[in-house]
Amino acid sequence: MGKSILITGGARSGKSAFAERTVLALGQPATYIATAEAHDDEMQERIARHQARRGAEWKTVAAPLALREALERSDGAGPRLIDCLTLWLSNLIHAERDWDEETDALCALLPKLTAPVVFVTNEVGAGIVPGNALAREFRDASGLMNQRVADACDELWLCVAGHPLKVKPQ
Amino acid sequence: MGKSILITGGARSGKSAFAERTVLALGQPATYIATAEAHDDEMQERIARHQARRGAEWKTVAAPLALREALERSDGAGPRLIDCLTLWLSNLIHAERDWDEETDALCALLPKLTAPVVFVTNEVGAGIVPGNALAREFRDASGLMNQRVADACDELWLCVAGHPLKVKPQ
Amino acid sequence: MGKSILITGGARSGKSAFAERTVLALGQPATYIATAEAHDDEMQERIARHQARRGAEWKTVAAPLALREALERSDGAGPRLIDCLTLWLSNLIHAERDWDEETDALCALLPKLTAPVVFVTNEVGAGIVPGNALAREFRDASGLMNQRVADACDELWLCVAGHPLKVKPQ
Repeated sequence: MGKSILITGGARSGKSAFAERTVLALGQPATYIATAEAHDDEMQERIARHQARRGAEWKTVAAPLALREALERSDGAGPRLIDCLTLWLSNLIHAERDWDEETDALCALLPKLTAPVVFVTNEVGAGIVPGNALAREFRDASGLMNQRVADACDELWLCVAGHPLKVKPQ
Repeated sequence: MGKSILITGGARSGKSAFAERTVLALGQPATYIATAEAHDDEMQERIARHQARRGAEWKTVAAPLALREALERSDGAGPRLIDCLTLWLSNLIHAERDWDEETDALCALLPKLTAPVVFVTNEVGAGIVPGNALAREFRDASGLMNQRVADACDELWLCVAGHPLKVKPQ
Repeated sequence: MGKSILITGGARSGKSAFAERTVLALGQPATYIATAEAHDDEMQERIARHQARRGAEWKTVAAPLALREALERSDGAGPRLIDCLTLWLSNLIHAERDWDEETDALCALLPKLTAPVVFVTNEVGAGIVPGNALAREFRDASGLMNQRVADACDELWLCVAGHPLKVKPQ
């Protein structure tokens, strides 16, 4: 069974850079599984910036929804980086898919994989309670998804100002 | 003097579940002191979900405002879980009570209790500065209350994606 | 080269108080470099509260923008506390200065200083994604600035409910 690692943190806390270093240390070639969809210019610019930072040792795959399929197809060919689960959750909700079931299925898949997996996710629940119900629901779903994936993973890290703190195992 | 523990974290970071495990490990029967008031459906549903997770080993008491009285009355009959201080603060402010004095009185009570107490609270200050002054005031009050209760407690834990990080004692 | 320390945390997490203790432990007299500008009553009241907590062992200097100059001028005369980088960033953006270049120049200055420096900054990226683009940009800029200053500093601490967690060095 391949090692599985969850990396969480606030916006711009250095999660992606730490995840990339972690994945490359686990082996090469590495597969970058992007869950982002380039809906607007702001997002397109962000994706381009992320790609520019990664070098030629990466193969990039897009999986806005079909994350499990991407993990199964890329299994056995080096470590995978999934960036990020928060966008995957957002995509699932917009597509009116059952994120609850999808999360369970993702967690159930992990012990069956042979190559390592590093997930990036976001802390979105440490601000003031959002005024609108949709944002509260998303914040709840994010936290619940993070908990379940963290349970299923071997390691959990929290990024703070670019530096990782190990949360699990203690 | 009973041990006192403060557990903090963002929304859906696993604080309540960790607090429940911690309380049951401290002894039984346990008393659950709920500070929530079921004003609307969303909150009622949340309370019901929390109650369903807890089993028959819990006695439930409601204390939206009179938290000290609930702690004094339940003292000596096993550990107590207070879930949560953020709602208590919100209730005090809505009732136009002096949260500052109430917090000091709560902290002064702790060394006099004989049975253990586990408090749950929330991190609400790590997002962008809220646009309205009321939200900023609540965020400030929450942080100040958390600091004072953390000072008065023996232990302080931060929950991240369902996993506890010990902050105090180091 | 003087030791450099970055202290981060959410609003009212005890960053300033911990920073003040840290600075006084590094030597005296200490210089307090304030980046706040007293634009309105709320901010004026906050500044007054901070000043009241500090004692006579502090010299206070205002540097809403010219932070590097303040660090150079005060170098050699005991430790400095910069409170806080988030307001400095906000001031730079409002003055239409290039925060990116200013941050690089600040980091480049650190190894040249002889007296210690303790920076306070804020976690603003762990809430729900803000609805307006300006807030998202500020949140991104804050996180990137924090990462770079953390890289340049010898130590990084995260404050949680008034208690510091060491993030770097591990």
